[in-house]
Amino acid sequence: MNTIGKLFTFTSFGESHGKGVGGIIDGCPTGIEIDKDFIQKELRRRRPGQSAITTPRKEEDRVEFLSGIFEGKTTGTPIAFVIWNKNQKSKDYDHLKDVYRPSHADYTYQQKYGIRDYRGGGRSSARATAGWVVAGAVAKLVLKPHGITITAYTSQVGNIALKKPYTDLNLLMIEDNIVRCPESKTAQKMIDYIDKLRIEGNSIGGTVSCVIKGVPVGWGEPIFDKMQARLAHAMLSINAAHGFDYGKGFDGISMTGAEMNDPFELKDGKVTTRTNHSGGIQGGISNGQDIYFRVLFKPVSTISQKQTTLNKDLKKVTLEAKGRHDPCVLPRAVPIVEAMAAVTLLDLYLLNR
Amino acid sequence: MNTIGKLFTFTSFGESHGKGVGGIIDGCPTGIEIDKDFIQKELRRRRPGQSAITTPRKEEDRVEFLSGIFEGKTTGTPIAFVIWNKNQKSKDYDHLKDVYRPSHADYTYQQKYGIRDYRGGGRSSARATAGWVVAGAVAKLVLKPHGITITAYTSQVGNIALKKPYTDLNLLMIEDNIVRCPESKTAQKMIDYIDKLRIEGNSIGGTVSCVIKGVPVGWGEPIFDKMQARLAHAMLSINAAHGFDYGKGFDGISMTGAEMNDPFELKDGKVTTRTNHSGGIQGGISNGQDIYFRVLFKPVSTISQKQTTLNKDLKKVTLEAKGRHDPCVLPRAVPIVEAMAAVTLLDLYLLNR
Amino acid sequence: MNTIGKLFTFTSFGESHGKGVGGIIDGCPTGIEIDKDFIQKELRRRRPGQSAITTPRKEEDRVEFLSGIFEGKTTGTPIAFVIWNKNQKSKDYDHLKDVYRPSHADYTYQQKYGIRDYRGGGRSSARATAGWVVAGAVAKLVLKPHGITITAYTSQVGNIALKKPYTDLNLLMIEDNIVRCPESKTAQKMIDYIDKLRIEGNSIGGTVSCVIKGVPVGWGEPIFDKMQARLAHAMLSINAAHGFDYGKGFDGISMTGAEMNDPFELKDGKVTTRTNHSGGIQGGISNGQDIYFRVLFKPVSTISQKQTTLNKDLKKVTLEAKGRHDPCVLPRAVPIVEAMAAVTLLDLYLLNR
Amino acid sequence: MNTIGKLFTFTSFGESHGKGVGGIIDGCPTGIEIDKDFIQKELRRRRPGQSAITTPRKEEDRVEFLSGIFEGKTTGTPIAFVIWNKNQKSKDYDHLKDVYRPSHADYTYQQKYGIRDYRGGGRSSARATAGWVVAGAVAKLVLKPHGITITAYTSQVGNIALKKPYTDLNLLMIEDNIVRCPESKTAQKMIDYIDKLRIEGNSIGGTVSCVIKGVPVGWGEPIFDKMQARLAHAMLSINAAHGFDYGKGFDGISMTGAEMNDPFELKDGKVTTRTNHSGGIQGGISNGQDIYFRVLFKPVSTISQKQTTLNKDLKKVTLEAKGRHDPCVLPRAVPIVEAMAAVTLLDLYLLNR
Repeated sequence: MNTIGKLFTFTSFGESHGKGVGGIIDGCPTGIEIDKDFIQKELRRRRPGQSAITTPRKEEDRVEFLSGIFEGKTTGTPIAFVIWNKNQKSKDYDHLKDVYRPSHADYTYQQKYGIRDYRGGGRSSARATAGWVVAGAVAKLVLKPHGITITAYTSQVGNIALKKPYTDLNLLMIEDNIVRCPESKTAQKMIDYIDKLRIEGNSIGGTVSCVIKGVPVGWGEPIFDKMQARLAHAMLSINAAHGFDYGKGFDGISMTGAEMNDPFELKDGKVTTRTNHSGGIQGGISNGQDIYFRVLFKPVSTISQKQTTLNKDLKKVTLEAKGRHDPCVLPRAVPIVEAMAAVTLLDLYLLNR
Repeated sequence: MNTIGKLFTFTSFGESHGKGVGGIIDGCPTGIEIDKDFIQKELRRRRPGQSAITTPRKEEDRVEFLSGIFEGKTTGTPIAFVIWNKNQKSKDYDHLKDVYRPSHADYTYQQKYGIRDYRGGGRSSARATAGWVVAGAVAKLVLKPHGITITAYTSQVGNIALKKPYTDLNLLMIEDNIVRCPESKTAQKMIDYIDKLRIEGNSIGGTVSCVIKGVPVGWGEPIFDKMQARLAHAMLSINAAHGFDYGKGFDGISMTGAEMNDPFELKDGKVTTRTNHSGGIQGGISNGQDIYFRVLFKPVSTISQKQTTLNKDLKKVTLEAKGRHDPCVLPRAVPIVEAMAAVTLLDLYLLNR
Repeated sequence: MNTIGKLFTFTSFGESHGKGVGGIIDGCPTGIEIDKDFIQKELRRRRPGQSAITTPRKEEDRVEFLSGIFEGKTTGTPIAFVIWNKNQKSKDYDHLKDVYRPSHADYTYQQKYGIRDYRGGGRSSARATAGWVVAGAVAKLVLKPHGITITAYTSQVGNIALKKPYTDLNLLMIEDNIVRCPESKTAQKMIDYIDKLRIEGNSIGGTVSCVIKGVPVGWGEPIFDKMQARLAHAMLSINAAHGFDYGKGFDGISMTGAEMNDPFELKDGKVTTRTNHSGGIQGGISNGQDIYFRVLFKPVSTISQKQTTLNKDLKKVTLEAKGRHDPCVLPRAVPIVEAMAAVTLLDLYLLNR
Repeated sequence: MNTIGKLFTFTSFGESHGKGVGGIIDGCPTGIEIDKDFIQKELRRRRPGQSAITTPRKEEDRVEFLSGIFEGKTTGTPIAFVIWNKNQKSKDYDHLKDVYRPSHADYTYQQKYGIRDYRGGGRSSARATAGWVVAGAVAKLVLKPHGITITAYTSQVGNIALKKPYTDLNLLMIEDNIVRCPESKTAQKMIDYIDKLRIEGNSIGGTVSCVIKGVPVGWGEPIFDKMQARLAHAMLSINAAHGFDYGKGFDGISMTGAEMNDPFELKDGKVTTRTNHSGGIQGGISNGQDIYFRVLFKPVSTISQKQTTLNKDLKKVTLEAKGRHDPCVLPRAVPIVEAMAAVTLLDLYLLNR
């Protein structure tokens, strides 16, 4: 269904070409100053059309809060908000009314619900994630005074991988390039590759990595609300996400237990671990070290090449090469990954008290 | 918390050295014949001590049902069950009372709860998963008449990987060897490697793959109960699980959209997809094709080598090399992966009606 | 929190003097034609200012749907809606900023949340129930084709009680008078009494009765989602509701078991009960007979008489007699009771399948 | 379904003639000393067969804890427990296999589930409430150090009502007589009346009142988890409960707003209310005053008189007058009301932090 979380909950609504997208945040702590500039900045990071390599549709997303905020602060009551859709030129989508685009949700929505808003993907469009980013921004505002930072970045595009671990990167550089990879040389390779695919009308996936600093020991609710399980749930909710790992993850598949184990040790009088292969989580509970994980994204299904598929009447049809498309979802997925991490963390924080 | 699911829910309880482990299954459809032999067989698959390469502790797990079944059939009321713990020789564990074993949950549980049953890992022990297997077996019994089969197998141990996709494997051979890899040559390599590590007192991880056949179009509840999100949540709940991917997953990271997309086509009058890189899920909803995913397991933390770490007084201590241990969790993880997949699927089935 | 229901869920938002009130309906069956005229009619029934005996504030509530409806029909995706607040003259409420009105939620909200929108009661205002009526109207549209009708009426105002059971009343007459009592003589007495209290600046409570016809056997999910428990939960959520009973209820307190029991018998080949003292529910499950219950409402706390109380600085203050007020909430509670009954029933219907 | 609560949850299981009844408590705060004597004492209060006026079946209920407790204290992990059924002489119930007893759940369970454990009412039996009492006792142990007491008593049996408000009663006298009415003269009238009905093979209902002292301001989560809504839900979950009111309730139906309002005033430097007609709750949130409410119970359906009804084949049958029965459920309902109040309060306490 469309609600995530137990105490800090977010209920999402909206289709890409309906009136708007948004949601209701419930359970937000009271007295939090709602920094609208920050929220808009986060929304802007998700916006398409920021550069040559991303989708050209110009959206000027502005969030309108409808409730739960009084004199600039949260009141503990539900925070409803809308991001109004603009220029939803519906006629553009009539040609998609009856076609099941390859690897899109057209077919599954049609079969499941018997009816669907086919315009621009409707409910299955990534457009809905604009609302998630707002919820995540609110969660970040709550977590910030606790010293918690959540930072995601593009770590791999196709075969072009950032080899260095996050500890060797300058995470402040993430916004310095349009692909959001904090190493300029690798970033440029990624950009060039994406640009090439864009021209070919093709697309590519990769990974977004995320680092969470400042989480104290104790967050995560075994046995079915383990932190990694909740993070995986949130991440696999994102459009086009196809995988998740945390700590060493798949890269550590050949390591033995003797290599992988993180012995505890004292450092400046505080408990720490010599290594952090566990990704800051043990037994489903944060251990005070950095939490880090990766999200795998498949290439976006919308491409500008000819493809054959079926229509509603189960006739074979050829999809024409369309104009421009977003060849790589990763830069825009970065703020969404952060948002869903923030929403998840805040809920686990509230559950832990 | 300790409940998973919305309509078909499972609430887990139990510590490794308490009276027993088990749970309550709620929302089970009525009139299902409870095949106790099948359930015991499933439990036996999870049991350690089945061979030289697994942990030697002999458990003879038998499930005792306490409610919800009348004259052999489910009645729609909650099904409570216990698997009694045997020979829980608590004295064995006194040496672990005050020590924080590397990469175990000793430290995080102690910090979070302020108190813990330290015997054999207590609540964080994989012992609890015996109960999960029972819940999964019941779910399988419900799903079976719908033609749904769930089959997991060991697909990689350290660097030893089964290269073939599941479509080229004979999944009936999974139980033919102790590592549960359906290709005998690769299986033997895995066994040899695990055996070598066992002798060295070391451990190794890898991947379990899972294939679900027979799911019709329409299961999965966007936008936050997408099938892949629910599966990831369930899988990352399993002890030592560190990653999840579905469809092509991480192996397809270099594929472009044009290569990845699964065009719809007609086959024998039925809608199918030419390829199935999506892993049978589109927009969070099953599309009628096979669902397949992988779960990454890190090497188990319990090894028989000397390790240094901290104790409760934050003094450095050396853990002695102990006797025998389970060098590879994967063969035992196979039935647990199946069980959690079954529990998740049944819930999505009930939600879809 | 602000969500009710398990499968058909309603998440409410809004304060009386914020931008608007509304909510998100999730889990609504697909393909339901959204009859906006019907929904507006329901909203209008809840509107104050309909007559001399009710509150004079003129609200012209119109619902704006933001999502979940395509070409006039529900799509199975979340239905968000807003009813915009109008003329929320905030200055009017400055005198209430620091005062704890007797029996209002001013004090408890302030203490719980540390901050509150004091204008017109803010979140604790009955204004929010406009959103509930919309959710209820949508639920009614789903239930209607199943032959289910939900009819509430004012059955007692102070000591003026409608003595007849619902079976002796013409429920089609409910909207014939402004107090919504389906017996004109009693209605007139109620109206006269309410009018007298209005002039005195006083208020009065009473009971709303509700009859649900057409529910088949089997709705209600023991042991903690029994139909009566869910109905009581929904009804006691309504502002000023202070009691609930179903079947014979408090009126049958002197009846013995021999008198109270409802023997089953055949009527026209169908199972029925000779009497229906159980109110159509046995063991928490509908038995196919009419479901009927009552909701007790206390007199509204807002009166136009002088009262002393405390302010935020814990100083004694005198509340001045204000202008006009709503002396009796019952006529407006009628559609709210129906709405919450519809929301509850639809959820139990979906859970029962 | 069979779970109640959000943070402190209780999942119930068990049939009257299965292996046992019990449940899983999840979310219990850690470090709580489990006073087994206290829990047994609570269980004993619920036990039938304590006197001439109650049901003669001798149950010796003893709770066995299976998990979640280590060295006598709660560990924050799920607390599973069983109360084993004894002497479940199933043959006794063969005559009920095919009959739909008047006002019992036989018919509704059979229709809903298609199968039922007919022995002694099966799942619909009040036997399950033994588990609730254990959950309530654990909740009481958690609430006790916070200075919270929960006290219920029989306030009305048929027409024999305790006229005095709870403030004029000595609540320490509740256990002094078998009917649990804290005024000996009224108690004796009730006992005589119940005894008369017992001899006649008849039964009677009435009300249980409950007083909760010590709850601070702020518990209760509007707008759908208001304290009164949650209490009503919990109370209407109890077998034979048919009504609920709080504060003045139905007895105050003729009071005007001017009479009903509770003005705030200072007393010994603390905020209090001059009267407490609100029952300690305003806007769904506790206001620091005593919380008090009533639960209405109908007469138990099991009587020892001849009755006609239908059997499974829809033939008219006559139920024979049986031996002994429990003519009044109220004394046994007292500890159940307290237990469900405790479970509800603890959840609201945890939600409020």
